[in-house]
Amino acid sequence: MLAAEIIAIGSELLAPDRTDTNSLWLTEKLNRIGIDVKLKTIVGDDDARLEELIKDAVKRSRVVITTGGLGPTEDDITRKVVARALGLRLLLDEKVLNEIRARFQSFGMTMPERNSRQAMVIDGAEILPNPNGTAPGLYLEHEGCSIALFPGPPREMNPMFENHVQSRLEKLAGDLRFARRVLRVAGMGESAVDEKIAPIYTRYENPQTTILFNSSEIEIHLRAHGRTEADAEALLDDLSLKIEEALGNSVFSFRGETMEEVVGRRLSITGFTVAVAESCTGGLIAQRLTNVPGSSKYFTEGVVTYSNESKTRLLGVDKELIREFGAVSQQVARDMARGVRHRAHTDFGLAVTGIAGPDGGTEDKPVGLVYIALADDAHTEHKRLMLPGDRELIRWRASQAALDMLRRRLI
Amino acid sequence: MLAAEIIAIGSELLAPDRTDTNSLWLTEKLNRIGIDVKLKTIVGDDDARLEELIKDAVKRSRVVITTGGLGPTEDDITRKVVARALGLRLLLDEKVLNEIRARFQSFGMTMPERNSRQAMVIDGAEILPNPNGTAPGLYLEHEGCSIALFPGPPREMNPMFENHVQSRLEKLAGDLRFARRVLRVAGMGESAVDEKIAPIYTRYENPQTTILFNSSEIEIHLRAHGRTEADAEALLDDLSLKIEEALGNSVFSFRGETMEEVVGRRLSITGFTVAVAESCTGGLIAQRLTNVPGSSKYFTEGVVTYSNESKTRLLGVDKELIREFGAVSQQVARDMARGVRHRAHTDFGLAVTGIAGPDGGTEDKPVGLVYIALADDAHTEHKRLMLPGDRELIRWRASQAALDMLRRRLI
Repeated sequence: MLAAEIIAIGSELLAPDRTDTNSLWLTEKLNRIGIDVKLKTIVGDDDARLEELIKDAVKRSRVVITTGGLGPTEDDITRKVVARALGLRLLLDEKVLNEIRARFQSFGMTMPERNSRQAMVIDGAEILPNPNGTAPGLYLEHEGCSIALFPGPPREMNPMFENHVQSRLEKLAGDLRFARRVLRVAGMGESAVDEKIAPIYTRYENPQTTILFNSSEIEIHLRAHGRTEADAEALLDDLSLKIEEALGNSVFSFRGETMEEVVGRRLSITGFTVAVAESCTGGLIAQRLTNVPGSSKYFTEGVVTYSNESKTRLLGVDKELIREFGAVSQQVARDMARGVRHRAHTDFGLAVTGIAGPDGGTEDKPVGLVYIALADDAHTEHKRLMLPGDRELIRWRASQAALDMLRRRLI
Repeated sequence: MLAAEIIAIGSELLAPDRTDTNSLWLTEKLNRIGIDVKLKTIVGDDDARLEELIKDAVKRSRVVITTGGLGPTEDDITRKVVARALGLRLLLDEKVLNEIRARFQSFGMTMPERNSRQAMVIDGAEILPNPNGTAPGLYLEHEGCSIALFPGPPREMNPMFENHVQSRLEKLAGDLRFARRVLRVAGMGESAVDEKIAPIYTRYENPQTTILFNSSEIEIHLRAHGRTEADAEALLDDLSLKIEEALGNSVFSFRGETMEEVVGRRLSITGFTVAVAESCTGGLIAQRLTNVPGSSKYFTEGVVTYSNESKTRLLGVDKELIREFGAVSQQVARDMARGVRHRAHTDFGLAVTGIAGPDGGTEDKPVGLVYIALADDAHTEHKRLMLPGDRELIRWRASQAALDMLRRRLI
């Protein structure tokens, strides 16, 4: 596979709270066309370091992509330093200059003098038009290396890559095409998943399989290559199917969809409706369900009943039940699910009550104890969970388990 | 300032969905003691590239930190390649070997032979003990460069850095100490903020000021240095105060606290309670409020009334009002706030109704139109917002504006 490296340029990217999302996006795109990212670097507005990086990069990698540093200020050093590292001249391109001027005029402004820097072009490079900003990109072939320089803002960089660079790199990459798929699993532990599917996926070198444990979910990442994208997809179809046979309903998503998207689609298709009653998840389930566009078709209402009084008033939970079994109990969870369904006149009522911590746990009912319940017109089911993690994670995992209970009922 | 670079090692870190969080953590730590991170690299399990990187790094940077690649498998190349790059031998350390054996024994296991690799030590390096894993770290001074090798898992790396490396680097860094602060702003646009505070912060070289626009919030990042941390903090205090004077109540957070933490603390202190009625935010406000530990003291209940029928049944919103003005109107928002307050018997009722899109917008009431309202016993206020962005962003911004309305009332 062809080797690429990505260099992100800009001192602001070295702050402790900044991640370089451009390189993730580019990696996805490059992998898909069969190019391997071997190295990623983040460097500040630092002439000497950048020059050394560029010199090394063009020697060791077939493709070098930089993002950032094409702005109009003194700090924007990419054009200048790349030219110097490659031993090429920097020339003013009148056509680019006129385009930048015209762009400013179209907003009723005069181009500030400093923006003329952005019309400087490395000798022999092609211009990559940037319809979403003033800084054009550059593309050049130099001593067997393909070099593309992009501006930093994703809304400028992404279409420039897709429209002007991707197809060139595809030709370089040759015949292999790659495809990726993410399967998501709920309701099983990581080792249980691996035990069931390792005998399957280890038989394949193509697709390659990686299992990731990602807060409340297990993700199975598959990556395949073939002569065409369709070939690669067919290999993914084949292995996905075998994994699904081994894990059954626990695989809830085959294209990376979220749990709430999967549940939402099933509700949409079946025409059923749902209402939600939450205690420890505090609105998280309602929020997740309603984050899906069009959710008003199947989600009518949710209540967050934090106090016992509100459980009784809003859901009709029996006061005696709360006194006898406590607010965190299977009895109350079941009553909440039935209550919200009845009052909202929906097909399903989904409820959660539990202790998310850090306080409020006891020996009998420790932090992490959660009851979930699901009611329809015929019966009510419930489940007792002991969830590990901090408050945020317990809430997330509880919401996931509740949505998963509904998903399984809808199959 | 002393220059450092960080090298993250491991092919899995080059996947399109992995971010290198170790380098962010290390940057924060290094900056605090006055060391600048000049370069960050992510490299796979790739002998040649790693060797070149290490050679360049020790030449150009005073401090080089690597994370990852210290495990027991063939893929774990850090020890071997760093030794080769520095021209140093790799020796088996019997003491370390015995410690790894003992660690396995303490779990009732025999050490697999391959783990003996982890007892290989670069000639002249000091061992950094790792109480949370089998791979010890290494620290060495080589031709004027301080080099630390850490394992990749944060729960192993973080305490190893804090307990064994931080104080050495502090001595190297010399007398300057650094401090950082993040001020968060709500209810003002980015250019309005900059216009008000640029005349202030541009007068200071120390602290340095950066303004970041981060989804719904504007963050003002301040960084100062002084002879002691207290000196640096005093400089931050001084500039923060001036910025606060210029922006007034719009600065809601001085130490990076979230809006819900700030609102929660004010409710806690004052003893007031709140209930929430949400339409387009779908539970997001309740979820944010209840994400704060101890929120059951001031948050009693929330309702997510997606359907018109539920607005009437759960909140007592007048049907005629909905028919006359529509569910997305100031009249309905105000009625929702009054209704939820009245029924929940709380001090405040907070309500949101709007159109989050992508569908449901009309010419009169386009996507992004949101009304927020806040009721107490004496009166009800409301605000009309036109929020830009996609569904998720509109929902987030609406929740932020609503919480901010409550925060301002509590001042």
